[in-house]
Amino acid sequence: MQTVELITKKRDGGKFSSEEISWLIENYTHGNIPDYQMAALLMAIYLRGMDERETSDLTLAMARSGEQLRVNTQISPVVDKHSTGGVGDKVTLAVAPLVAACGVAVGKMTGRGLGHTGGTVDKLESVDGFHVELSREDFMRILHDHQIVLAGQSAELAPADGKLYALRDVTGTIESIPLIASSIMSKKLAVGASHLLLDVKFGSGAFMKTIEQARQLAQAMVDIGRAAGLHTVAAITSMEQPLGRAIGNAIELAEAIDILRGNGPADVSELCYHEAAELLLMTGKAANQAEADQMVAQAIQSGAAVKKLTEVIAAQGGNPQQIERPELLPHAPIRVMLTAPQTGYIAAINAEGLGLASMSLAQAASKKVSLLIIVPA
Amino acid sequence: MQTVELITKKRDGGKFSSEEISWLIENYTHGNIPDYQMAALLMAIYLRGMDERETSDLTLAMARSGEQLRVNTQISPVVDKHSTGGVGDKVTLAVAPLVAACGVAVGKMTGRGLGHTGGTVDKLESVDGFHVELSREDFMRILHDHQIVLAGQSAELAPADGKLYALRDVTGTIESIPLIASSIMSKKLAVGASHLLLDVKFGSGAFMKTIEQARQLAQAMVDIGRAAGLHTVAAITSMEQPLGRAIGNAIELAEAIDILRGNGPADVSELCYHEAAELLLMTGKAANQAEADQMVAQAIQSGAAVKKLTEVIAAQGGNPQQIERPELLPHAPIRVMLTAPQTGYIAAINAEGLGLASMSLAQAASKKVSLLIIVPA
Repeated sequence: MQTVELITKKRDGGKFSSEEISWLIENYTHGNIPDYQMAALLMAIYLRGMDERETSDLTLAMARSGEQLRVNTQISPVVDKHSTGGVGDKVTLAVAPLVAACGVAVGKMTGRGLGHTGGTVDKLESVDGFHVELSREDFMRILHDHQIVLAGQSAELAPADGKLYALRDVTGTIESIPLIASSIMSKKLAVGASHLLLDVKFGSGAFMKTIEQARQLAQAMVDIGRAAGLHTVAAITSMEQPLGRAIGNAIELAEAIDILRGNGPADVSELCYHEAAELLLMTGKAANQAEADQMVAQAIQSGAAVKKLTEVIAAQGGNPQQIERPELLPHAPIRVMLTAPQTGYIAAINAEGLGLASMSLAQAASKKVSLLIIVPA
Repeated sequence: MQTVELITKKRDGGKFSSEEISWLIENYTHGNIPDYQMAALLMAIYLRGMDERETSDLTLAMARSGEQLRVNTQISPVVDKHSTGGVGDKVTLAVAPLVAACGVAVGKMTGRGLGHTGGTVDKLESVDGFHVELSREDFMRILHDHQIVLAGQSAELAPADGKLYALRDVTGTIESIPLIASSIMSKKLAVGASHLLLDVKFGSGAFMKTIEQARQLAQAMVDIGRAAGLHTVAAITSMEQPLGRAIGNAIELAEAIDILRGNGPADVSELCYHEAAELLLMTGKAANQAEADQMVAQAIQSGAAVKKLTEVIAAQGGNPQQIERPELLPHAPIRVMLTAPQTGYIAAINAEGLGLASMSLAQAASKKVSLLIIVPA
């Protein structure tokens, strides 16, 4: 096969066979296809698209490009949960221990913040000593012992995706539904959970600005999951305004602890409880919605949920006291109260603007002490 | 300016300002923009296009990227003639000395063969000792002394185009009208003749397969020439079958000598005489078509035309005896006569197929001895 012929094929609107996609990804991963050829191909894919089968083949080829954990072969069911990213999105921090506390194993590799959105890994690292770089053996051992593990993304996981993502970032080819969907799903398939709950965000604070784009992305990922035998459900949720009241690494973790104790803001608590219940239903742990809701409420009320978070933090080297007493988490050195100049109601909050402001604060100070508190009316 | 923002702009169908195009070409030429970003941009340009003003700006930016001969400031008028390339296309070999013999200076930098088409430089190099690598000083001196010079393309001429062309070749972005037009015209503008005759070929043996594509390319190049103050005329001519009877470096030169002596095949002789007359009209050397045709016929009959070819060959180190006695040019070691299995008329000749066959022969033997003789019915 000749790379130029394949570029030309896609440029002219053609469809790749499974063999062609495997060939491209294998040769790109091994450095046989230079970046300049892949960049031209990515732009052709961006502008010409890929159909469901091509997207699925691309995902599988990228998943095969490196280490494959196959966690599902050792523990089953094991769930994964992924958010496409938003501002103040601490849902994973709460849902993962909540589900694990209900007896369903959660094996998750998670990423850093991207653009104006924070990453789960960055938030977890607010805890002293907590580390996310886990060997395959440690990942499996912690998952086995605690029914939960929250690791950072291994560089050995879907390396083709890592290489392609870096290239997309500098060639204006990020915002393509087939490329986004295959990038996310390749890492999920390489981990190999049995069930996956996707939270696809739309709105001003999300990468997908409209519900229609979010729906397309969700559908593309569910299609990939189905084709690969991964039980996948997607929730499409609003990111028109920040979730909860906190934006920033440590304060979002503190808010997640509030949610696990039943004291979190209503909007984000409701979303967390709903997603946790969905995972219990998907895996068959709960027979129906009422039973699922009941199990979630029980885990909150009994303290089992927050205990599970403390447990995983400790298992990964973190200081559990900072979970039991969130006031021990890092604080911003300066706090400024912004008061409204007049009485009224907050009609809208610019989520993306606040996400960027939080990121700037974090860069100006240190990673752990950026703080921005939103107090809705 | 950020390269990614410019890629994104073109990806989304936007138009570049003159400043944006200058910035891109300058930074690419100096290695500040990596090939992978330029490859993505080229694919975006291929699929989204560029308008007349953008194409003209791109051409000027590439022409400015290196040495500029400005031959027109020292000798005027000075004409240039360019063919987009065909099979058996020896027109430049005949037209250039013919026009020079009529008293109009011809300053030409010419390329190697591309794909299935031969290059004027390769054909000229059939002559022992002839060399095309000329310094700027030699180029100007030979042009001044002989009113004709046939040099190879200098690497210092429009280096941005050289770099871009090499990248287009491996990224499936060759066949784009704005990119082809700007590539050709940037080199013409860097040489800086006062008048340019373009021969845009269409048909099975040309790069443009349809007359419509040829028309678009011709129009794009004429537009660029006009915008840059270069008097440009384009002829759109058929390459449905090979021109004349010969395909191959030395035998095409021999056929060009026949044409200059008035003994060439009718089809290609007529084209050469017509193009030469057009150049005499464009430059005002001839007042009207009848006078132009008369001057051309006179140069042929008097032997001035073939003498001019001998003169430039000698000036560039070649053996003039091989022009006076073309039987001294290299020959193929083996000649095979293919006879028709039955009586009839030749209805069509596959020009591209014969071009590729000739190229294979040249590669199998040595560059100078490939031969393929077509005897039309």
